[in-house]
Amino acid sequence: MQYPYQDTKLTIRQRVTDLLSRMSTQEKIGQVNQNRYGWETFADEKREQLTDDFKQHVAWGGGLGALYGLFRADPWSKVNFENGVAAQDSWRVANRVQKYVIEQSRWGIPTLIVEECPHGHQGLDGISYPTNIGRGNAFNTTLMKQSAQLMAQELALKGVNLALVSTLDLVKDPRWGRSEECFGEDPILAARMSQAVVDGFQGDLIQSNHSFWDQPVNLATEKPIGVVLKHCIAQGEALGGHNSGTVTLGNREYSDIYQPLLQSVQNAAGVMAAYNDVDGVPCHINQDLLTRQLREQVGFQGIVMADGTALDRLSDVFETQPQAAAAALTAGVDLSLWDQTYMQLDQALAQDLVSESLLDRAAGRVLALKFLLGLFERPYLTDPASELAEVLQQADTLNLQVAQESMTLLKNNGLLPLTQAKQKIAVIGPNANDVYHLLGDYTAAQSPTRLTATIYQQIKHTFKNAEVVYAQGCEVRQTEQQTELIDQAIAVAQEADVIVLALGGSSARNFEMQFLKNGAVSSKGINMDSGENVDVADLTLGGQQLTLLKRLSQLKKPIVSVLIQGRPYDLTEVTALSDAVLVGWFPGQQGGQAIANTLSGLNNPSGKLSLSYPRNTQQLPVYYYQRDAAKQDDYYDQSGGPLYPFGAGISYSQFDYSDLQVKTDVDKLIVTVKVKNNGQYAGQESTLLFVKLTGGFVIQRLKLLKDFQKNGFEPDEQKTVTFILPNEVFKYMDMDQAVKTAQRVTIMIADLKVEVPLSI
Amino acid sequence: MQYPYQDTKLTIRQRVTDLLSRMSTQEKIGQVNQNRYGWETFADEKREQLTDDFKQHVAWGGGLGALYGLFRADPWSKVNFENGVAAQDSWRVANRVQKYVIEQSRWGIPTLIVEECPHGHQGLDGISYPTNIGRGNAFNTTLMKQSAQLMAQELALKGVNLALVSTLDLVKDPRWGRSEECFGEDPILAARMSQAVVDGFQGDLIQSNHSFWDQPVNLATEKPIGVVLKHCIAQGEALGGHNSGTVTLGNREYSDIYQPLLQSVQNAAGVMAAYNDVDGVPCHINQDLLTRQLREQVGFQGIVMADGTALDRLSDVFETQPQAAAAALTAGVDLSLWDQTYMQLDQALAQDLVSESLLDRAAGRVLALKFLLGLFERPYLTDPASELAEVLQQADTLNLQVAQESMTLLKNNGLLPLTQAKQKIAVIGPNANDVYHLLGDYTAAQSPTRLTATIYQQIKHTFKNAEVVYAQGCEVRQTEQQTELIDQAIAVAQEADVIVLALGGSSARNFEMQFLKNGAVSSKGINMDSGENVDVADLTLGGQQLTLLKRLSQLKKPIVSVLIQGRPYDLTEVTALSDAVLVGWFPGQQGGQAIANTLSGLNNPSGKLSLSYPRNTQQLPVYYYQRDAAKQDDYYDQSGGPLYPFGAGISYSQFDYSDLQVKTDVDKLIVTVKVKNNGQYAGQESTLLFVKLTGGFVIQRLKLLKDFQKNGFEPDEQKTVTFILPNEVFKYMDMDQAVKTAQRVTIMIADLKVEVPLSI
Repeated sequence: MQYPYQDTKLTIRQRVTDLLSRMSTQEKIGQVNQNRYGWETFADEKREQLTDDFKQHVAWGGGLGALYGLFRADPWSKVNFENGVAAQDSWRVANRVQKYVIEQSRWGIPTLIVEECPHGHQGLDGISYPTNIGRGNAFNTTLMKQSAQLMAQELALKGVNLALVSTLDLVKDPRWGRSEECFGEDPILAARMSQAVVDGFQGDLIQSNHSFWDQPVNLATEKPIGVVLKHCIAQGEALGGHNSGTVTLGNREYSDIYQPLLQSVQNAAGVMAAYNDVDGVPCHINQDLLTRQLREQVGFQGIVMADGTALDRLSDVFETQPQAAAAALTAGVDLSLWDQTYMQLDQALAQDLVSESLLDRAAGRVLALKFLLGLFERPYLTDPASELAEVLQQADTLNLQVAQESMTLLKNNGLLPLTQAKQKIAVIGPNANDVYHLLGDYTAAQSPTRLTATIYQQIKHTFKNAEVVYAQGCEVRQTEQQTELIDQAIAVAQEADVIVLALGGSSARNFEMQFLKNGAVSSKGINMDSGENVDVADLTLGGQQLTLLKRLSQLKKPIVSVLIQGRPYDLTEVTALSDAVLVGWFPGQQGGQAIANTLSGLNNPSGKLSLSYPRNTQQLPVYYYQRDAAKQDDYYDQSGGPLYPFGAGISYSQFDYSDLQVKTDVDKLIVTVKVKNNGQYAGQESTLLFVKLTGGFVIQRLKLLKDFQKNGFEPDEQKTVTFILPNEVFKYMDMDQAVKTAQRVTIMIADLKVEVPLSI
Repeated sequence: MQYPYQDTKLTIRQRVTDLLSRMSTQEKIGQVNQNRYGWETFADEKREQLTDDFKQHVAWGGGLGALYGLFRADPWSKVNFENGVAAQDSWRVANRVQKYVIEQSRWGIPTLIVEECPHGHQGLDGISYPTNIGRGNAFNTTLMKQSAQLMAQELALKGVNLALVSTLDLVKDPRWGRSEECFGEDPILAARMSQAVVDGFQGDLIQSNHSFWDQPVNLATEKPIGVVLKHCIAQGEALGGHNSGTVTLGNREYSDIYQPLLQSVQNAAGVMAAYNDVDGVPCHINQDLLTRQLREQVGFQGIVMADGTALDRLSDVFETQPQAAAAALTAGVDLSLWDQTYMQLDQALAQDLVSESLLDRAAGRVLALKFLLGLFERPYLTDPASELAEVLQQADTLNLQVAQESMTLLKNNGLLPLTQAKQKIAVIGPNANDVYHLLGDYTAAQSPTRLTATIYQQIKHTFKNAEVVYAQGCEVRQTEQQTELIDQAIAVAQEADVIVLALGGSSARNFEMQFLKNGAVSSKGINMDSGENVDVADLTLGGQQLTLLKRLSQLKKPIVSVLIQGRPYDLTEVTALSDAVLVGWFPGQQGGQAIANTLSGLNNPSGKLSLSYPRNTQQLPVYYYQRDAAKQDDYYDQSGGPLYPFGAGISYSQFDYSDLQVKTDVDKLIVTVKVKNNGQYAGQESTLLFVKLTGGFVIQRLKLLKDFQKNGFEPDEQKTVTFILPNEVFKYMDMDQAVKTAQRVTIMIADLKVEVPLSI
């Protein structure tokens, strides 16, 4: 051991301080940059020769802060199964990068290998789970945590150190293409899911009220991995649902809704700043947000990462990139992403726009994370071969459960579950037989073995006695005549006993498309209408899907409509013309099987809507927790209320609620309610607890979710579900901008309600 | 003279102080209440016998603070030409009320007679001007001031003391039924118009930086009248365009956009608080708004009036009405409107919820206004017979000009102006032959002589050589088959040389409809789709209007579409299928003539859109001064930009801009631009000056209107238009919530732009 920073007995803070004291300014600048696209690191497909550009970049920074997307394999990176890194080889490639970086650094500083993992690793053979909007419908944080654990294991075995995971955005306007990346519209649901992601990925890597900086590295844990939660914050509030659009949100609205989400990042290794402004101030230069709120109020200890090229977008505000760099560094951005701006921190320092102590702060945080992850001591992996295969297999199994629990049944006139008797099932629709349509945005190229996991194929597999036939019917978004496809579908369907119609949208990117510098798609596709940068104005189902539905409905056969979608498309006509409506969202690689299992009754659907399902764009916004103003609720020409409320979703069973009791304690409420399965199927029921607050000089919200719990029930089984609600959850921001606790609360579960005063 | 308060040589403050010291608490409570509907004051149609209820109410308050709507004559009040007060008799009725109130007051305190005058007096024979949205398109503050002067004279001669006028709302979401009451979406345009209203109504009754409280009453002025501007504030920001809906606006957005509007109320006698909250806090209890901003920052000296029943709606926030009363009184509401809440101020005092000094403050302000208006000295009127008739006649003439200047031509393929040659003109459409459809909400019953002032009748009158025929075609909002009406229209149109098609919406209330306690309509009508409480979700033209248009377009005849509307309905198809498109908004009693004059070329249209004209609801919001974020502008399925931008509007002439010069001075910019009429018609041109600011830590707006000027031009005439812009107009709220002046500005006029630094 040559230097104190190499001493594992010292606290991380001591090691960081020592290391920083030795580093040159340029080396520190190197640590706060994450500039290159990881998939361009190597000059050859075997990933043996580093590119000259990569070597020059490492030389420039005297090391490498972080490397994004070494394993990313998708249409943007142009990496696929032909030219990409197989999962089982990733460790070797990671080692090769790590070794080079460490050797080029005077101080032997490793790099952070960063990968995208919003619903599974966006690399070859990554497990692709349902996107967040579906997982939100599952209302199951345990499942979320379990899948996060498996994702963490998968990534760790590939040599990944940091996973980027969307958890913080809310669907406030479903025109937004990234609605699929949100757990729904509800802040508490999203915060709990976010917390589960942190717990699952990181375990006890970082603990509340326990500064990791003041501890030595813990080398007892195996392969720790950090999670970077995105995006911070309020990105879903953009006017018009425009991607990275401006946000005009007021401070009280912000505080009530986003503070719980901000709180959920407390133990995360990192958080990614959001592209948007909040009331004019870009998140990337918002010191109040990134420093006061995040670190001082929440106690966040990790790094703040910029979003891709977001610092360069600060040309909206600043004349020069050094000015932008200084502002971001001052606000609290610790690590860049693909921007030129942080590459010019030397200029910012030379021009005295920012002090070196702020550079030390940022670089120190990046280094602290590397110490925390044990990268200095254990930068390399060994071949994880069988272990990885095991993890992937476990994940496949869990993934089916996740997909099944996200299935949300909105209508069933008794048609479902479908009989297993001998019959003919026509599976129709643009989303019926393409696995990419099930996966959502931020999805890797799929291995050939995955390509048959479509709805059609899985129905065929599941209904052994049935004759299962298929027709596409139409493309997702082709507005030109689809008569031939529709006619074929009618021909296929008219001999069938039941029609399963898979409609909706798709975020499938393909290798012919064009992309922006930040990876968002910029071209259009007839089978692509969602995901980053693909906002729609009209929530009507695209292309000729409704024509297909209407033509099919004229056959007077039972129709199950299955919605594969990343945002809530208008279901008014679908509901009217279908005997059953199942919303599957983007259900992931096991989605086809999950749908087949739900149709067959093997899975009793338990999803509940995690958003207020709108009728159309014209009535937006309809999110349920608006303030209870004495407004004109309905429009002259239509209802102002959603088509289905937040929490809607039926089961093959029937769950009845009774005997809601609220016991007030000194600092908490104890709520109990009896839930009984009065149906004939075993099933799960998510019990949602809402409150209406009373108090203060503000109009309180109509209601707000404060807790939820999912339980399984046999037929006729009754359980008493208990919630413990500390008084501190009943907070709101008052007229004077002080956060206060309500005087009284009304507890609402199902159709039951009880009002109680709080003892404060 | 018995008491000091009767001494006209004392300042108003001294008189108020003296009078308050003599009054009982209950008498003061009487002064801050405006509880009864004025049209219910008399028991008989001759208005000779006061009702017992009225007498009891005066006795309750030991006088009467204010009386709303003594002359209101509309479907809500059920007052019409049969049972109402003729304009020439109003003075007598006013005297009768005033005499009773004064005699019942121990201190001889007169009442305030308050009338609705959003676009003309809502009383019998009131002059009904275009609604604000049309007047905004005129961009003519001089004309606004002139019409306000005539309205003031008209009202004063009828015995009215306070006029309620909408000037402060902005169309941020045209779904809102009250869009017609807004001058448009632009804060500077609305602020200038608001200022013109104050100047026109009040003259120098109240002057900036000159406290009227510290002056004696000025009895030299004849018949002064005060104006109450509404609504304070940000009512147009309601989520979803829902009437009186909740507003989530942030503080920087609020400051940039609403501070200029707040400033415009400086010299008004009163301001009406808005129903909505801003970021959770109802305006009626917002002390920061009603006291700090309005009085301390702006220097407002008048009274704050509650909106109708708004204080009772505070049950959203408070458990009891005395609590609500205390909060409103504390915040700065001085006078109630129809609520029970301020009737319970005695309870609020008894329960120690508020101190009597705050009651003194409110009552003192009401009394000060009565002193200011000279009501103590000159409470009664004499017969104004010929003078009133003269004013009404002048107003009719001016009203035509106002209507003409609000005409906004959006398309003209050369069809307009129509030839005066012998031809057959078919005037078709639901808005072609009903004068009430031209008038907007808050309109009185019309005298029989007004009823023929329709578009059809005025075209007939104007095109002397033409054969003018008419068919209704369809109702505004009838969705059931209108085949018979459409067939009739086709039959009428197919012999014509040109078709004038009057489409759009209507705010016409009728005597069969139901109304809420605050006068907003609550029933629906097939010819009523706008105005207070009538929000629509879909901006598509209502009923079968587009069917009518399409059928007519099949005749392959020239079509001029004329839009009579209070909000921007989708004109995509109208523009495609018409040779000319003229937006007339709700053009008032002279609207039919103004349209005929515009079609004939007697009026060269000069209106420019005072809002960004949307394609449909799905792309909202499209207002032009959003922050210039690096967002995804367009949707996958349609443009994100408006159909026509703010300021669009063509003339029969063509105006060309050149030679934009910006001279920077110590504390101002001097901007000149050359404007030339290159067309063959004399015409007027509104020159709009926009700026883009640079500076600070916020994303600045795409652009902002900072000044405008309307000038007349003969053919080939060129003028140099000059704007003087003090540096202080280039303000914005920065990251730190401080209001700062920009470092640089880009001045934009038409397609010209110049960027300059500000010397600050």
